[in-house]
Amino acid sequence: MIASPFRSARERSAEREQKREAILLAAVRMFNSRGFHATSLDDVAASLGVSKPTIYHYLGNKDQVLLECLTRGLVQLQQEAEKARAGSGTGLERLKQFLRRYAEINMTDFGRCVIRTDDSALSPESAERFRALKRQIDTHIRNLVEAGVADGSIRSADTRLTAFVLAGALNWPAQWYREQGRQTAAEFAAQMVDMLVDGIAPR
Amino acid sequence: MIASPFRSARERSAEREQKREAILLAAVRMFNSRGFHATSLDDVAASLGVSKPTIYHYLGNKDQVLLECLTRGLVQLQQEAEKARAGSGTGLERLKQFLRRYAEINMTDFGRCVIRTDDSALSPESAERFRALKRQIDTHIRNLVEAGVADGSIRSADTRLTAFVLAGALNWPAQWYREQGRQTAAEFAAQMVDMLVDGIAPR
Repeated sequence: MIASPFRSARERSAEREQKREAILLAAVRMFNSRGFHATSLDDVAASLGVSKPTIYHYLGNKDQVLLECLTRGLVQLQQEAEKARAGSGTGLERLKQFLRRYAEINMTDFGRCVIRTDDSALSPESAERFRALKRQIDTHIRNLVEAGVADGSIRSADTRLTAFVLAGALNWPAQWYREQGRQTAAEFAAQMVDMLVDGIAPR
Repeated sequence: MIASPFRSARERSAEREQKREAILLAAVRMFNSRGFHATSLDDVAASLGVSKPTIYHYLGNKDQVLLECLTRGLVQLQQEAEKARAGSGTGLERLKQFLRRYAEINMTDFGRCVIRTDDSALSPESAERFRALKRQIDTHIRNLVEAGVADGSIRSADTRLTAFVLAGALNWPAQWYREQGRQTAAEFAAQMVDMLVDGIAPR
């Protein structure tokens, strides 16, 4: 029996997926480094040795490419939030678990894109979708804070402000973080979360 | 004696200053709302009913206008840092005093511009000046943290990380804050600082 030169449906699907991933990764890195407006799909295509219609074929127009990058980041956050929600432990323990992953994901390519993208870069429909996904994450954080207040592991507090300050503090590294060997993103994330949880005043 | 139709040197100087301020405020608001790249000096001039050469006359080119906006924000931060440095009280008290003002200034037009501007928007010389001014603020925060660690009012900590997390948490509101009547920027700033100092775990 000779090896068939024709690929199976499964192989074709896997190859398609691999190409989509390569395009998304090239695009998100360019959006993050040059800014969305300064990046053209021609540049993204050229960096992969293909032409713009190839990107249209696999992902769609620039707005759709950006929305897909944002969705990648937000879906990861969503999955981690679900894990923390369903986990055992006090509200504070589960909040810490989530916040560590939140900070870590914010330092990845797709996470940085979520933090750095302004709604105004997207079409109205995509912007609405982006905001809806972000609201879900915000709601998850608030719910974890509320669970902690309810079980006494978090001091009674303005839940909205607390969620906002925690998220904001952990969004900031997305603006500048580059892994440097000295310390992994996970270690850095854990240190930041510990500081936010314990404060800086002596206990 | 008739009133002279000629203005005194002092009046002319005051008028010049007033015009510079009006241009800077119009420019910083447009930079913040539309983004620096999407704003032209023609738009800024038109919003004041003048032409672009008038802006060149009072402030210079777009890079110089931006650097002046950034300098306004950073000089205010610098002054507050100096006050906190020279103040009485523990390191923690002086750090809190500064951080409250830091958060408040970040929510003003010029402060928001400092936070939202990426070095890459500036000419190399202006970018260097901008970075130098920001480094001074960072050094002030670290010094206040160190003073607190030395007098026992702040838990011994990684000073660099601590300064970074505090500043990052208080930079974030610059991305979205709009005063809404319900709460002043000062009150909001104080609440954020208290939360960062005390943490969220029960004491």
